[in-house]
Amino acid sequence: MEKRKICVVVTARPSYSRIKTALKAIHEHPDLELQLVVAASALLDRYGSAVDYIKSDGFEIAAKVFNVLEGENLTAAAKTTGIGILELSTVFDNLNPDIVVTVADRFETMATAIAASYMNIPLAHVQGGEVTGNIDEKVRHSITKLADYHFVASENAFDRVIKLGEDTNSVFNTGCPSIDLAAEIKKSPELDFDIYKKYGGVGARPNLSDGYWVVMQHPVTTEVGSSRRQIEATLNAVFNRKEPVLWFWPNVDAGADGTSTGIRSFRENYDLSNFHFFKNMQPTDFLKLLYNSKGLIGNSSVGIRECAFLGVPVINIGSRQNARARGFNVIDVDYDEKMIADAMQKHSAVKKCKESYVYGGGDAGVKMADLLATLPLRFSKTITY
Amino acid sequence: MEKRKICVVVTARPSYSRIKTALKAIHEHPDLELQLVVAASALLDRYGSAVDYIKSDGFEIAAKVFNVLEGENLTAAAKTTGIGILELSTVFDNLNPDIVVTVADRFETMATAIAASYMNIPLAHVQGGEVTGNIDEKVRHSITKLADYHFVASENAFDRVIKLGEDTNSVFNTGCPSIDLAAEIKKSPELDFDIYKKYGGVGARPNLSDGYWVVMQHPVTTEVGSSRRQIEATLNAVFNRKEPVLWFWPNVDAGADGTSTGIRSFRENYDLSNFHFFKNMQPTDFLKLLYNSKGLIGNSSVGIRECAFLGVPVINIGSRQNARARGFNVIDVDYDEKMIADAMQKHSAVKKCKESYVYGGGDAGVKMADLLATLPLRFSKTITY
Amino acid sequence: MEKRKICVVVTARPSYSRIKTALKAIHEHPDLELQLVVAASALLDRYGSAVDYIKSDGFEIAAKVFNVLEGENLTAAAKTTGIGILELSTVFDNLNPDIVVTVADRFETMATAIAASYMNIPLAHVQGGEVTGNIDEKVRHSITKLADYHFVASENAFDRVIKLGEDTNSVFNTGCPSIDLAAEIKKSPELDFDIYKKYGGVGARPNLSDGYWVVMQHPVTTEVGSSRRQIEATLNAVFNRKEPVLWFWPNVDAGADGTSTGIRSFRENYDLSNFHFFKNMQPTDFLKLLYNSKGLIGNSSVGIRECAFLGVPVINIGSRQNARARGFNVIDVDYDEKMIADAMQKHSAVKKCKESYVYGGGDAGVKMADLLATLPLRFSKTITY
Amino acid sequence: MEKRKICVVVTARPSYSRIKTALKAIHEHPDLELQLVVAASALLDRYGSAVDYIKSDGFEIAAKVFNVLEGENLTAAAKTTGIGILELSTVFDNLNPDIVVTVADRFETMATAIAASYMNIPLAHVQGGEVTGNIDEKVRHSITKLADYHFVASENAFDRVIKLGEDTNSVFNTGCPSIDLAAEIKKSPELDFDIYKKYGGVGARPNLSDGYWVVMQHPVTTEVGSSRRQIEATLNAVFNRKEPVLWFWPNVDAGADGTSTGIRSFRENYDLSNFHFFKNMQPTDFLKLLYNSKGLIGNSSVGIRECAFLGVPVINIGSRQNARARGFNVIDVDYDEKMIADAMQKHSAVKKCKESYVYGGGDAGVKMADLLATLPLRFSKTITY
Repeated sequence: MEKRKICVVVTARPSYSRIKTALKAIHEHPDLELQLVVAASALLDRYGSAVDYIKSDGFEIAAKVFNVLEGENLTAAAKTTGIGILELSTVFDNLNPDIVVTVADRFETMATAIAASYMNIPLAHVQGGEVTGNIDEKVRHSITKLADYHFVASENAFDRVIKLGEDTNSVFNTGCPSIDLAAEIKKSPELDFDIYKKYGGVGARPNLSDGYWVVMQHPVTTEVGSSRRQIEATLNAVFNRKEPVLWFWPNVDAGADGTSTGIRSFRENYDLSNFHFFKNMQPTDFLKLLYNSKGLIGNSSVGIRECAFLGVPVINIGSRQNARARGFNVIDVDYDEKMIADAMQKHSAVKKCKESYVYGGGDAGVKMADLLATLPLRFSKTITY
Repeated sequence: MEKRKICVVVTARPSYSRIKTALKAIHEHPDLELQLVVAASALLDRYGSAVDYIKSDGFEIAAKVFNVLEGENLTAAAKTTGIGILELSTVFDNLNPDIVVTVADRFETMATAIAASYMNIPLAHVQGGEVTGNIDEKVRHSITKLADYHFVASENAFDRVIKLGEDTNSVFNTGCPSIDLAAEIKKSPELDFDIYKKYGGVGARPNLSDGYWVVMQHPVTTEVGSSRRQIEATLNAVFNRKEPVLWFWPNVDAGADGTSTGIRSFRENYDLSNFHFFKNMQPTDFLKLLYNSKGLIGNSSVGIRECAFLGVPVINIGSRQNARARGFNVIDVDYDEKMIADAMQKHSAVKKCKESYVYGGGDAGVKMADLLATLPLRFSKTITY
Repeated sequence: MEKRKICVVVTARPSYSRIKTALKAIHEHPDLELQLVVAASALLDRYGSAVDYIKSDGFEIAAKVFNVLEGENLTAAAKTTGIGILELSTVFDNLNPDIVVTVADRFETMATAIAASYMNIPLAHVQGGEVTGNIDEKVRHSITKLADYHFVASENAFDRVIKLGEDTNSVFNTGCPSIDLAAEIKKSPELDFDIYKKYGGVGARPNLSDGYWVVMQHPVTTEVGSSRRQIEATLNAVFNRKEPVLWFWPNVDAGADGTSTGIRSFRENYDLSNFHFFKNMQPTDFLKLLYNSKGLIGNSSVGIRECAFLGVPVINIGSRQNARARGFNVIDVDYDEKMIADAMQKHSAVKKCKESYVYGGGDAGVKMADLLATLPLRFSKTITY
Repeated sequence: MEKRKICVVVTARPSYSRIKTALKAIHEHPDLELQLVVAASALLDRYGSAVDYIKSDGFEIAAKVFNVLEGENLTAAAKTTGIGILELSTVFDNLNPDIVVTVADRFETMATAIAASYMNIPLAHVQGGEVTGNIDEKVRHSITKLADYHFVASENAFDRVIKLGEDTNSVFNTGCPSIDLAAEIKKSPELDFDIYKKYGGVGARPNLSDGYWVVMQHPVTTEVGSSRRQIEATLNAVFNRKEPVLWFWPNVDAGADGTSTGIRSFRENYDLSNFHFFKNMQPTDFLKLLYNSKGLIGNSSVGIRECAFLGVPVINIGSRQNARARGFNVIDVDYDEKMIADAMQKHSAVKKCKESYVYGGGDAGVKMADLLATLPLRFSKTITY
């Protein structure tokens, strides 16, 4: 029997981290052949060159697609998606996959979904059914309505996809593959490397031995005009606490300019002797860093998922993670300096939070690979109501 | 107060017919400015040059976008959509509309939906919530999840859009604007022109005075391989009945080749003395033609909507119109010569069917214009569950 | 030593025929690896699906690129080229060739030239330096100014490329690879197949045993408005002579509509009992057909090149082949029924013309492969004056 | 008589400065209507938002086209051009200009040339016939072969365009429109504004009253790998001289990363108390700044053109300006610290150089407008040899 060709399109650094164990499981599955396509910001240096990590992790790349239109505005996001469709169609036409896998809900993942579904290639969607703020919200559910299989990460998401009119036989709660990596890390979570040496970055190099905070805050596309004010609330709160802060640059999105400008301007006006800035980090190292931190501040989904599993305290700011299921580790706050400061104070009282399995137990990748190997191939469906 | 700029993107001849009264109502509304964009097959001669009708109807065209990629295969459909996004983004950036309107569910309408929603322009979707077979099914609900306002055509569709998690305040049963035109036609439905003279076409010119059938059957994109066999069932059934047949060419879609080839081959092998073939017809003339016919055969939505209102007997073939609400005029059949023949026989017993208002009462265009003038502008939403 | 990767982009049926022996020579060269990219109309059924011949000739296809925008107008030609650049860049980025080869002067070959030269990939241009009418004229010399190596087909072309400011070391008169095929055919030129049976086509099937004419006339892009009138002069001339005519459909170009419409209309109005129409033919069969014909009529470059070598009488109509070097076989005429008729009469007096080696002697493919294997790699140049 | 519609496409800040007086002359010409299209980096903040200057100069913008693909690599340059063609075709189709004007030789100007020439719109090319290093060299001459009219800037360029086979009647030595602006500046060249206050920028704010140097050095696309080393030679030379330096960031081009990285790294490792960095400046202010400086260092064409006219000493580094005609003001040097330092020393001995009219006398814009109003419209040509 010929192996099923599974084409996974990775378009951004965070998506790669999240899907990595699934890629590994597909690659190692006896009945599957992995066709890995790397596109969009995953190819770009200023968003952390996921492509380099992908190669150094030993994956072979079937095709690269440069499609990020410059501008960091909303027009550019739309055009990036249009170019993505144009080129991924050619890629799919040349690779001829049996199933295409699209990950999560970034705007450009819609390109994968449209190219595959329009070409009658069965489409699997990872991480549908969640609720967030942002354009991601529209994109995610819109992709659900194009996808033929749904690999969701929580019970809550499972129920929502069913409510969206998808057939019960097409929805599977695999848990989130990002938890798989966290599960491995939990086995030996020591911060066994010098982060400054290994990752460079810019700014002061505060001593981390008495604890440190990690910040990762992305702009929210539906609130473009406010992104500078939003980032300043966070900057002020963590600056005033005077504890070491490891700050990660936001990923590419309309509004990044407001966020980036806010950070740069703050840096010029204040002596940030307790801040160090990173562009990115290998996922495993990042999870170790989180595990050993006083907590994560911002609006990254890592705080909601991996940190729930790892019991890392999280201060989740604003609407971006919205109604996603929570573990026991999250304090939700507004873009408000005082609320952020209070939450930091509160979290400082504990070392770790209770661990939660709301996003799965660490076998999502293997479950997905097994499903991809056995699901009946189909590319047509009708709404259930 | 400045007028709201309403940008409507028309991508195909049938969409234009359907939305025409809404365009007129927007154009005439004191608080609205119409920005009409004509794109895709609406610009192409071999799909009936809707653009010519649009101009002769007196509408000013704000921008034209050529984006149909050649191939009549599924890759081309995806790429056409990608190019559409790329270009419509520029058009929207230059026109700067307050609301964008996208019509129905053809594959390329997704380009309008993505460009507008990614650019944070409030998006109104006309004719969501219906159920059909085909890639249209995926596209339609996917657009619903991107749209901010929903102008649906029936109660049934209204309920479905609500179930899809849309806010009740954003869904409006306006009825279908195609019914508006039918309502006008009903006032004086005489076939007051010589169709052969006015529209040319090819084939024999059967005498229509004792009645005639109209056929319009489109390929179904999820059943590409079967399109030739499907069209042959219809060809055989109508050929054998030996009554006059006015046949309309299918619109552009992957699979058109199978359908077209089937028709051409049939034409070469049989003496079709009772067939005449048209490429297209002005909507008002087409409705008059239907009104005075023995019935419509095929899978066009006109049979489900306008014909329900007009009481024209319809034989609806296959899955394309699926679960759309029916009036009293439709007999649903498979791609089966005998079933089609039997339905023709059955319909022949009556002259007209009972009229139905399931798709509205003829004021959809005006209702839409009023809504577009008064709805609060918004481009962000959260699923209701 | 690693083999040099030579990427040849084929975008149309006639280009494939012309370059075929070079492809073979590259494929068989011990120091070269052929990367064959098939794009544009070479992939489309209605332009003769060159891709099928390419496969049946045993070449492996490295990538396919669908980029023909529908419209058959000039806007579509530009957009086809734009999409070509967008996609070929990705293809080149993925294939990483050492040299890219672009063939001749069709509008879309510019896409290959731009993608390669902008990406600093050494670019070889086949058949530069010739003079014709048409947009081809602009395209051809424009590509010369982008190319790093020039494989020209005649002394005349050689001189012209040098005059254009190219370095003598970069220009090589290889002869035309189309002659290679003609040289093979000349060894056994019998029409050893039933053309009607093998190629189908439409129209009458005149008896060919007493001789026949072949017609191949393409629209000229700078004379779009006149293409219908131009084709009618030819139709009238060959119709009135009442000898068998084998007519080949024009290839895709803006204006094809005028040409095609002219032919279709003529066919409807006259009883063309001596005409048969073909869409396309395998190059070897086509050359045999020409070899045994009374002559070729139209504006195809085959008349200027292969027919010069084979001594086939040619009536070359209009400006399209312009100042290309001529052998002894061509009578040049205007788009004028009488001039065409007179030339047919004149050519009828001879069976064959004197053979000419103005376009080489049959070893162009091998010469090109040898050059591609040994030329120093470079992608930068300065004009020589 | 209807006015001729002249569509000028501006794709970058420096091109705008250069063409500005022509835009003004076209706009003011009684027989012409200006259609100004702003595209590519001219729309982007990080390349100086030429679009803002264009608006504040009072020009109306007919269309904006975002087409810069992110990557700052060569693939991105090719794709940017492809997208440009795709979109400019739509723009031209909607604007329907009588003549399109493309400026100079940046890679993306090819998009304008292809869209216009393929659409049979007469194309005027400004600044053909010059010789430089770089991909610009290929692009420039390639555009010459597509263009119908040539508005060249010097006798030298005039001769070269004729040698390229263009008809004498289509080539006009108008002089360079950039000189028009310089001619105005020369009338009152005082540095009558506070550059730090007006333009911000970063770095020290050295006192300029005893003189200062201006640096503007762009990466050279054919020497991508060397751009960092190249910029360091300049950095070292000007740093060591310890006189005030006003440094302008390079424009967008493949390789900008190497150049930018070199500058950033230097800035981090040295105390640049005599350096101030600007992103951009209004052209008139920039010319005043140059006029009052000790000289311009780098490889900008401003040094070759405007500075020749103004008599500003220039140290021209490397191959980028290659064989362009020189006035009396230029010392050409390699990417070599010592050579640069020596040239600075030599130029320091004089205050101004002798003025030269090699690039015209200040009426290029008016000359161009007059030509555009009167030239016969044509879009077809044949090489002259």
